[in-house]
Amino acid sequence: MQNFTFHNPTKILFGEGQIAALDAHVPRDARVLITSGGGSITRNGVLAQVEAALGNRTHFIFSGIEPNPTYETLMQAVALAREERIDFLLAVGGGSVIDGTKFIAAALKFEGEPWDILAKQAPVTDAMPFGSVLTLPATGSEMNSGSVISHRAKGDKLPFMSDATFPVFSVLDPTTTYSLPPRQIANGVVDAFVHVMEQYMTYPINANVQDRFAEGLLTTLIEVGPRALAEPHNYEVRANLMWTATLALNGLIGAGVPADWATHMLGHEITALHGLDHAQTLAVVLPAMLTVRRTQKHGKLLQYAERVWNITEGTEEERVTAAITATRDFFERMTVPTRLRDYQIGSDSIDTLIAKLQEHGMTALGERADVTPEVSRKVYELAV
Amino acid sequence: MQNFTFHNPTKILFGEGQIAALDAHVPRDARVLITSGGGSITRNGVLAQVEAALGNRTHFIFSGIEPNPTYETLMQAVALAREERIDFLLAVGGGSVIDGTKFIAAALKFEGEPWDILAKQAPVTDAMPFGSVLTLPATGSEMNSGSVISHRAKGDKLPFMSDATFPVFSVLDPTTTYSLPPRQIANGVVDAFVHVMEQYMTYPINANVQDRFAEGLLTTLIEVGPRALAEPHNYEVRANLMWTATLALNGLIGAGVPADWATHMLGHEITALHGLDHAQTLAVVLPAMLTVRRTQKHGKLLQYAERVWNITEGTEEERVTAAITATRDFFERMTVPTRLRDYQIGSDSIDTLIAKLQEHGMTALGERADVTPEVSRKVYELAV
Repeated sequence: MQNFTFHNPTKILFGEGQIAALDAHVPRDARVLITSGGGSITRNGVLAQVEAALGNRTHFIFSGIEPNPTYETLMQAVALAREERIDFLLAVGGGSVIDGTKFIAAALKFEGEPWDILAKQAPVTDAMPFGSVLTLPATGSEMNSGSVISHRAKGDKLPFMSDATFPVFSVLDPTTTYSLPPRQIANGVVDAFVHVMEQYMTYPINANVQDRFAEGLLTTLIEVGPRALAEPHNYEVRANLMWTATLALNGLIGAGVPADWATHMLGHEITALHGLDHAQTLAVVLPAMLTVRRTQKHGKLLQYAERVWNITEGTEEERVTAAITATRDFFERMTVPTRLRDYQIGSDSIDTLIAKLQEHGMTALGERADVTPEVSRKVYELAV
Repeated sequence: MQNFTFHNPTKILFGEGQIAALDAHVPRDARVLITSGGGSITRNGVLAQVEAALGNRTHFIFSGIEPNPTYETLMQAVALAREERIDFLLAVGGGSVIDGTKFIAAALKFEGEPWDILAKQAPVTDAMPFGSVLTLPATGSEMNSGSVISHRAKGDKLPFMSDATFPVFSVLDPTTTYSLPPRQIANGVVDAFVHVMEQYMTYPINANVQDRFAEGLLTTLIEVGPRALAEPHNYEVRANLMWTATLALNGLIGAGVPADWATHMLGHEITALHGLDHAQTLAVVLPAMLTVRRTQKHGKLLQYAERVWNITEGTEEERVTAAITATRDFFERMTVPTRLRDYQIGSDSIDTLIAKLQEHGMTALGERADVTPEVSRKVYELAV
């Protein structure tokens, strides 16, 4: 096990009806800015529940935070928050809304040009306190301090994280997910699955607990993922999906172990170039990535085969192949296609994808920094 | 899954050499009171490392916090802290030292008679900030807000918990455990194992993740427990044991599920009457408790048999029996005897034990509150 620091102060309020707990967790005299995406929280009644819980607290609503939230949009929220002397932010939505709200919170306390938080990785030492009401299980943003923000004009998409940008609390009410389109549920399951894999599928390092926890999350996603599609109003299924997606990226299973994240980096370029959903790119890249790097990941692939997929028959190579196939089949069963050609993308895109990776400095990826552009090319080729 | 609140703000600094990180985590201008138990931290060099890390910060040492820490001793520390205008506490030791330090921290900010925190469960809304350097993996006190304090004069032993009594940070350096006597390691493994069982071995409630995490902790203890005895200087083994014991009682696996704790309550009376180590009482009570309540716990016992012990052959009743036997054998393999007669206690003690349970109001224990004194009597009888 590697040395690590683990710290996660976010309070989780989990379960049906917990939106009402906002009354106990938002400061009584706060001036609140509710941040949101499109109109879904109006249509499904979540916004009405939130406003009811806030009672007579002064509050404003900033809607329109887009998927891949942009600096341009978020700075409008910063201006509104300053104008209305806001002192508490409440993100109501999925990962994009929460990521965007982290940036708003940091920008409000930042001296200088807030884009420097991303472009220059200027340290964020203070942020406005904020909570979240999660409506889409997927990214884990509701219980971590990370955020990814895009700059429309510059064409950049950059991450930041800070101890100051953990949500103070997050409400996880599984019933808020009932009205999600199947595509968003499917994407969320794949996203959470690959979050776990990026922290688990590296090399053995005697981190027994972290391995068991990661395997537990993967197994749970395999159990509940297809049922979440088939039974959209099954509370227990949605509850397990929601809590699993949160635990997939809250720092716990990644503490003390190496991490990969090459699948994410290769996927980001596909989204940037072709507009695929983030989870679609992960479903495309991961099976190819595991195949190309099966030698380097041999030990963990065998463990994964046995513990997650109960694959114990055949030679070691056969078991590894079967585990990768099972992974691909799971994504397909989740209705997320796993080949570039399924999205009308051919091998003629690969030169551009590799050039973009190089432009972004992504030339030594993975847990051993051995995913060179040459290796990435093989992955893209196999993903076609 | 039940509704739940999960909140754990303690920062964990894990790994060899992390005591040096105290310098970054104890406020620069703090006046520090180091709290400790006997002299082991002097003999094994931990105190010297702590003092080196504190550098030129003003600090004092209060030693002598006993196993089952007492109000009488702790109030001496409170007096010293007041006299020396202490503003940060640093517990260096095992669960008793950390539990005791939680009480000191709460008492220092409490208006009125501090014993009321325990006797009247007076709310603790503020406490002096404190950190810990853990030297004994067992109780989980390093990452939770609970504490159990005894009053020597009154003969009481009572718990309290408060959001204000989470450690700000805890240093977990596995090498600090190398010099522990085998009996303390063995006890720690049993203690952590039963902590998990109390939160897991109840009835099925569709909490897939919590079950998988609990099973992962149990499996890890079964893997590393005997090796921790056989290979006292094996870093990886001690690291996995230490992190597992912390996660066994930090609120995570207990969030959203019912809990039992009847084994603990019956065990407490044995300690009070006969002076057995806490873990010894758990090793005695748990196999008997599972046997007596095997019908009520049937579903989870079957799941435990299969997932933790790989018992899949035989009838359901045979598998349940085999799982209980495997549990007992594991404790015995950890060199902790599992029958009262192994500690020279006979059935003539049972009337007194039951009377004490009744005196303490422990008449409706367990996840369904159906462990009446009559059921407890059967457990004690079977435990002889």
